[in-house]
Amino acid sequence: MRCSQAFLPVLKESPTDAQIVSHKLMLRAGLVRQTAAGIYAWLPIGLKVLRKIEQIVREEQNRAGAIELLMPTLQSADLWRQSGRYDAYGPEMLRIRDRHEREMLYGPTNEEMITALFRDEANSYRDLPRTLYHIQWKFRDEVRPRFGVMRGREFLMKDAYSFDLDEAGARQSYYTQLLAYLRTFQRLGIRAVPMKAASGPIGGDLSHEFIVLAPTGESEVFYDAEYEAVDWGRGDLQHGDAAGLQSMFDQISRTYAATDETHDEARWADVPATRQRTGRGIEVGHIFYFGTKYSAAMNFRVPGPDGQMITPHMGSYGVGVSRLVGAIIEASHDDAGIVWPDSVAPWAVGLVTMRGDDTASAAAADDLYAKLTAAGVETLYDDRDGRGGAKLASMDLIGLPQQLIIGPRGLAQGVVELKDRRTGEKQELSIESALARLTA
Amino acid sequence: MRCSQAFLPVLKESPTDAQIVSHKLMLRAGLVRQTAAGIYAWLPIGLKVLRKIEQIVREEQNRAGAIELLMPTLQSADLWRQSGRYDAYGPEMLRIRDRHEREMLYGPTNEEMITALFRDEANSYRDLPRTLYHIQWKFRDEVRPRFGVMRGREFLMKDAYSFDLDEAGARQSYYTQLLAYLRTFQRLGIRAVPMKAASGPIGGDLSHEFIVLAPTGESEVFYDAEYEAVDWGRGDLQHGDAAGLQSMFDQISRTYAATDETHDEARWADVPATRQRTGRGIEVGHIFYFGTKYSAAMNFRVPGPDGQMITPHMGSYGVGVSRLVGAIIEASHDDAGIVWPDSVAPWAVGLVTMRGDDTASAAAADDLYAKLTAAGVETLYDDRDGRGGAKLASMDLIGLPQQLIIGPRGLAQGVVELKDRRTGEKQELSIESALARLTA
Repeated sequence: MRCSQAFLPVLKESPTDAQIVSHKLMLRAGLVRQTAAGIYAWLPIGLKVLRKIEQIVREEQNRAGAIELLMPTLQSADLWRQSGRYDAYGPEMLRIRDRHEREMLYGPTNEEMITALFRDEANSYRDLPRTLYHIQWKFRDEVRPRFGVMRGREFLMKDAYSFDLDEAGARQSYYTQLLAYLRTFQRLGIRAVPMKAASGPIGGDLSHEFIVLAPTGESEVFYDAEYEAVDWGRGDLQHGDAAGLQSMFDQISRTYAATDETHDEARWADVPATRQRTGRGIEVGHIFYFGTKYSAAMNFRVPGPDGQMITPHMGSYGVGVSRLVGAIIEASHDDAGIVWPDSVAPWAVGLVTMRGDDTASAAAADDLYAKLTAAGVETLYDDRDGRGGAKLASMDLIGLPQQLIIGPRGLAQGVVELKDRRTGEKQELSIESALARLTA
Repeated sequence: MRCSQAFLPVLKESPTDAQIVSHKLMLRAGLVRQTAAGIYAWLPIGLKVLRKIEQIVREEQNRAGAIELLMPTLQSADLWRQSGRYDAYGPEMLRIRDRHEREMLYGPTNEEMITALFRDEANSYRDLPRTLYHIQWKFRDEVRPRFGVMRGREFLMKDAYSFDLDEAGARQSYYTQLLAYLRTFQRLGIRAVPMKAASGPIGGDLSHEFIVLAPTGESEVFYDAEYEAVDWGRGDLQHGDAAGLQSMFDQISRTYAATDETHDEARWADVPATRQRTGRGIEVGHIFYFGTKYSAAMNFRVPGPDGQMITPHMGSYGVGVSRLVGAIIEASHDDAGIVWPDSVAPWAVGLVTMRGDDTASAAAADDLYAKLTAAGVETLYDDRDGRGGAKLASMDLIGLPQQLIIGPRGLAQGVVELKDRRTGEKQELSIESALARLTA
């Protein structure tokens, strides 16, 4: 993308109405603009990051055998009356009347709808187990929306729902999603620790929150350093390996992690002092097993192998896709701006001419841009006139992993500068070496 | 995808509540389910098709230099008061009050929001021209939603908006979108004819509808057979070539095409009889130039090169992405079911074992499935037990372009059957030849 043909508004000043760093940076770097309280438009850079996160979430759901569909944003109130939640849900539910005065709502979650959909199609035990998911906009009418997309009202969520014939099956589905989540966060380039939630909706040990570690996080966290060593993508962890998943779950259950809400000083004291880690974190996902709560309320039963009717056991698994954009920035930024992990960077390379009006620089940069693009390297090319210093500051703010900088003096000696955004390390390289490095 | 692990509900009976063939087939083949009046959940097959259409629309928008962003579904009423449309828009606008009694609405279109967004960021004439687009769910509270996704209430639309410094520039932006639309429909495998709309919102010749030809279409159409011969993807038509685009536009303006609403018998009589084509069609897109209507109302001005303030000229360009799923089916089906064009088929190949309980068949099919998948050929594999005849009927209904059929008898002789869904032509081939054909 050439900046001269793009829509990349960058703010020089730090916006005064933003309280947290991710919100400030998302406004300054032009990721989002607020269009109403807690409602945001995603500008081109923000949308690119959002789509990359969404795609990683999707790939890990698919790898875990979950099946994608797409439910609508608006739901009928009648559906929620079947579960009893229409009256129970508070003012965070945005209630709507259509032109025929039918009661509707903007979905804050989809347990009722997915249960009704799957109930109406599943004919027998042979149609289970299944985990279905969608990635769709939701609405929660927060009384005081704040912190940008971290606590907005209209937000993008991946929510999955599992249907099993019994609790043992539901546990396997839960473990499978647990692993999918850990892999998702690892691929997103952030460290997320699973923490047993204060109490699941039906008690038991099957409810976890996922907390991204970020110095500016909303809650205090305590965890065992063993979490820092785990590679959730390693080959011996396999979806479909029941014993392996059980063992992973047991290991997680044994390894301490808690927020200030659930912190247990006695158990904490058992963690060797050298392994005690404290910090701050942001919740980015929550998974639940809730048994037959919705299936029973909504009369979902299938005949089993012996003809006896079975009420399926369910779980739900949510991850805040739009919230993750903010959470990743909270976890990965410096004074100059955002520092994107490679996997979600809007472009891999930022190409800058220090003097846009220098013919040789422009020609060299045009050529590099064409070659990088042809090699499939996503490149943002600042081809505008204007001071090199301002362009570099914008690139730092936007946070692309690599900057390729073309100046008239270097060019005269056949060299360009390659800067690593995270470390700040700069290297002078021949054009060929720089190209080879970036297309490797 | 293996059918045994999928969620692909197929109805044997034709649903009685569906009036048109695309709606019937979308229900029977398991593309959608209605969750409230005019509101649909997209089941896995439907979602796959929807995403393929969306991606083709996106690619042609990007090729045309349009820039993607994403605006939210809910908008504030105040924004629409700036243009005067809040009170003017009828009951099709879904009006909402949030918990603080703020007036909001579910966006039926986005002229106001994009004008406000771009206005707030564009600093001078140098920031124009730009065409911005998004692909987002919209809501129109139809009094009597019907025909499935063809006239639903919650629908997916691509809407683009162009901003230019003058009418000449706006015309170029209009021509550019016109070409992008024609290329989009051609890639979708349907014939769409551009028709001058009855009267644009500001008069003039710059408003066109795009009508997909389908025998079951909603309106009668009259057009010159010359449209059947045009290749909109041909190399001499280039975005950015002002003279070429003008000449394309002039050619379209000279070549007759009209719906019954705008049909002109006198001009029709001038079309040579051998080139007169009549038929039925479905509107799938609409483009407008509307000058400074919204920019003036919303006080959007930029300083020009001479310091004089310029009110940008705008156009808007909509295509019904979810409606296209229905329109393509209307244009491409037979008595047995849907016949997907290759570019939007949910999978390229349907692999069927006639006897799922035959070990040799299952082994051969497993092997073919692995090889096709490894070669990147999207394959739906019906690996279930059950009668071969029923499986083949389902494959015909779902409409994948190719069927690869494995039977015990053929297998004993080393052959499988390859069936072309559109022509019905069947061929017996060795496994190797079939594989070579499908991975070519």
